[in-house]
Amino acid sequence: MAELKGACIIGQSGGPTSVINASAYGVIKTALENPAITKVYGAAHGIKGVLDDVLYVMDEEDPKELELLLHTPSSALGSCRYKLKDSDVDDTDYKRILEIFKKYNVRYFFYNGGNDSMDTCNKVSKYMQKVGYECRIMGVPKTIDNDLFGTDHCPGYASAAKYIATTCMEIYLDARVYDTGMICILECMGRDAGWITAASAIATHFGKGPDLIYLPEKDFDMDSFLADVKRVYDKEGKCLVAVSEGIHDKDGKLIVEYGAADGSVDSFGHKQLGGLAATLADIVKEKFNVKVRGIEFSLMQRCAAHIASETDVQESFSAGKAAVENAVAGVTDKMVGFERATDENGNYVCKIKLMDLADVANAVKNVPDSMINEAANGLTDEFIDYVLPLIQGEPKRVTENGVPRFAELRKVVAK
Amino acid sequence: MAELKGACIIGQSGGPTSVINASAYGVIKTALENPAITKVYGAAHGIKGVLDDVLYVMDEEDPKELELLLHTPSSALGSCRYKLKDSDVDDTDYKRILEIFKKYNVRYFFYNGGNDSMDTCNKVSKYMQKVGYECRIMGVPKTIDNDLFGTDHCPGYASAAKYIATTCMEIYLDARVYDTGMICILECMGRDAGWITAASAIATHFGKGPDLIYLPEKDFDMDSFLADVKRVYDKEGKCLVAVSEGIHDKDGKLIVEYGAADGSVDSFGHKQLGGLAATLADIVKEKFNVKVRGIEFSLMQRCAAHIASETDVQESFSAGKAAVENAVAGVTDKMVGFERATDENGNYVCKIKLMDLADVANAVKNVPDSMINEAANGLTDEFIDYVLPLIQGEPKRVTENGVPRFAELRKVVAK
Repeated sequence: MAELKGACIIGQSGGPTSVINASAYGVIKTALENPAITKVYGAAHGIKGVLDDVLYVMDEEDPKELELLLHTPSSALGSCRYKLKDSDVDDTDYKRILEIFKKYNVRYFFYNGGNDSMDTCNKVSKYMQKVGYECRIMGVPKTIDNDLFGTDHCPGYASAAKYIATTCMEIYLDARVYDTGMICILECMGRDAGWITAASAIATHFGKGPDLIYLPEKDFDMDSFLADVKRVYDKEGKCLVAVSEGIHDKDGKLIVEYGAADGSVDSFGHKQLGGLAATLADIVKEKFNVKVRGIEFSLMQRCAAHIASETDVQESFSAGKAAVENAVAGVTDKMVGFERATDENGNYVCKIKLMDLADVANAVKNVPDSMINEAANGLTDEFIDYVLPLIQGEPKRVTENGVPRFAELRKVVAK
Repeated sequence: MAELKGACIIGQSGGPTSVINASAYGVIKTALENPAITKVYGAAHGIKGVLDDVLYVMDEEDPKELELLLHTPSSALGSCRYKLKDSDVDDTDYKRILEIFKKYNVRYFFYNGGNDSMDTCNKVSKYMQKVGYECRIMGVPKTIDNDLFGTDHCPGYASAAKYIATTCMEIYLDARVYDTGMICILECMGRDAGWITAASAIATHFGKGPDLIYLPEKDFDMDSFLADVKRVYDKEGKCLVAVSEGIHDKDGKLIVEYGAADGSVDSFGHKQLGGLAATLADIVKEKFNVKVRGIEFSLMQRCAAHIASETDVQESFSAGKAAVENAVAGVTDKMVGFERATDENGNYVCKIKLMDLADVANAVKNVPDSMINEAANGLTDEFIDYVLPLIQGEPKRVTENGVPRFAELRKVVAK
């Protein structure tokens, strides 16, 4: 494979995570150090920054600030939820991307995102191949949802899981402080896949977690749910419940719509969810006339970098690093994935693997049946064995004056 | 002062905090080590445990588990919200308390709580004096609300403040990730005092916090609020707002009641608040037709021990310790308070002071005018200078398997 010399672009897309910047740092640091890569650009707000010709020159950043990206949540370069049309239908965007790639001699494109972002990546890659512009394109995964196909787990998931597990344990103690009845409904993100909500089972595994956990993988039956709650509450005087925002009944109707929902959708056609905890709390309160509290983990579950998994931080970094190393070595059209292995002592090891972008884009990996208990209101030990190695390690974050010291980028725009 | 030999009871009351157990540990450890104290009992669910004769023998606990109380949130002994009647009106409870005190030869009573708890403490103390039963009674303060009269600050506040500051900084980054408009309303606890909400100004001070902050100390005017939001949003395309749950209009009507409120009250006659963020988000969305997200920090702000202030942990411990030491030395009828001082290098030092229970009970300390800006939508530097020393230090917590290792008490009930 002949060496391909040129600039690279790193873009971030989709909902942010606590560690997406760790992946970006993996790309940026490795690219800056690689002689094949002549310039490192960060696209402002993902593919939109390419279309708008707003590229930040990463070579101009202070290396110390870049390093702080490891523990800076959210997307430091800005994100987007822009969906590219099929180039057969409308190739305006693709022509523009090609124009920008040529303008800056971009020969490497790294895109850091979830399912939709891998779709973007794949489309750009196919177009560049069609028009014969040599450019190596690699997807760097992230998603707290953990729902990317073909990879053991996704960067970003473990930090959300650690936040959920830790917070559930803390709330478990808080919710039991009085000797009066209390039911608490905890709402976690997850439209189609229940991985994030499942992480509450870690708290349960250590004796301080939800009594009942409902994932969108299984149809939610209101009567069974109310019977479950009554059974636990009658016995314990307390009941802690975790639910995915996306739980739905057997007809596919979202449970959040049992209350008042506005039904608005985002640009990918996903419904804007929220308010499920409050909706269920109202229903339970109405039914049993006891104290019920609905709690939504909201944005905190995806941005609480202060309780990120250090394993996740390091793996996210290594995913970005591997994307650059492989691209420079000639690989293109792949997403960096993770394969679980064990070392000679039987300990968890995370290995890099490469997957075809076409196989990843828009496919969804759900929590398998074997990880969900028979009553569909909890997780099995198989899930605990799966998730525990991922959440290990406290974040080696930097604080100043008692608060986080996040990366401050100069963001010098390329001319 | 003659030495008073006898058992002690430590009870916890009111809403829990991240560090109330650190104070309890300060009492328990110091009492266990003091020869004047013959036995250390922990009352199950505060004064109710005394009335019900459910006392845990702390002498039976593993010292290592007790030490974990330093970083275990919520009230390990259980809490209550039980209000004693005036003994002139009905002395049934007091007679029972006296009976239990005599049964176990209790000569020291330490009560760990907020305003209402100091009231309980004061009433019990007055009754024991009236009937001539020698018992030294000390209040050990806690409240995330920081609203206890006469003390520079309250154990528990700084950890809530650190949670709020850290989380606001993380959400600030998350809420700016797209280049589309976004308004975010953050709801903090605080019925009458705005100290917790004020802590969001720490994030603003470090460049990543709310643009607008509204406390219950000032009347909330909906028109001014909407004008404030519009001004910020028109300029920035984003707007981050922090509000106290207790904000009200000039007629005293709670803003949460502008939406749907159920008006239920707890046993102290406090209204059950909640849903303010959602209510304001609806109003703002209706008005400006932009993306608005309401986030309630809910129980997390008072139980997130993983991001507690280590300064708060240590001060809380020292408050419990001082209560025991002073009681053994002959002091009674006092609450342990904090006085701010500086050492020879000008650094913050927290000194213990003793305050009359009667002066503390049911009095409320609000955020003073000098800490609130003129527009009543932010804090002044005076507040930042006040709060910053309190939130310093990361919690020296113990984790196991990637999650917190909380204290596991045996809770052997005294016979």
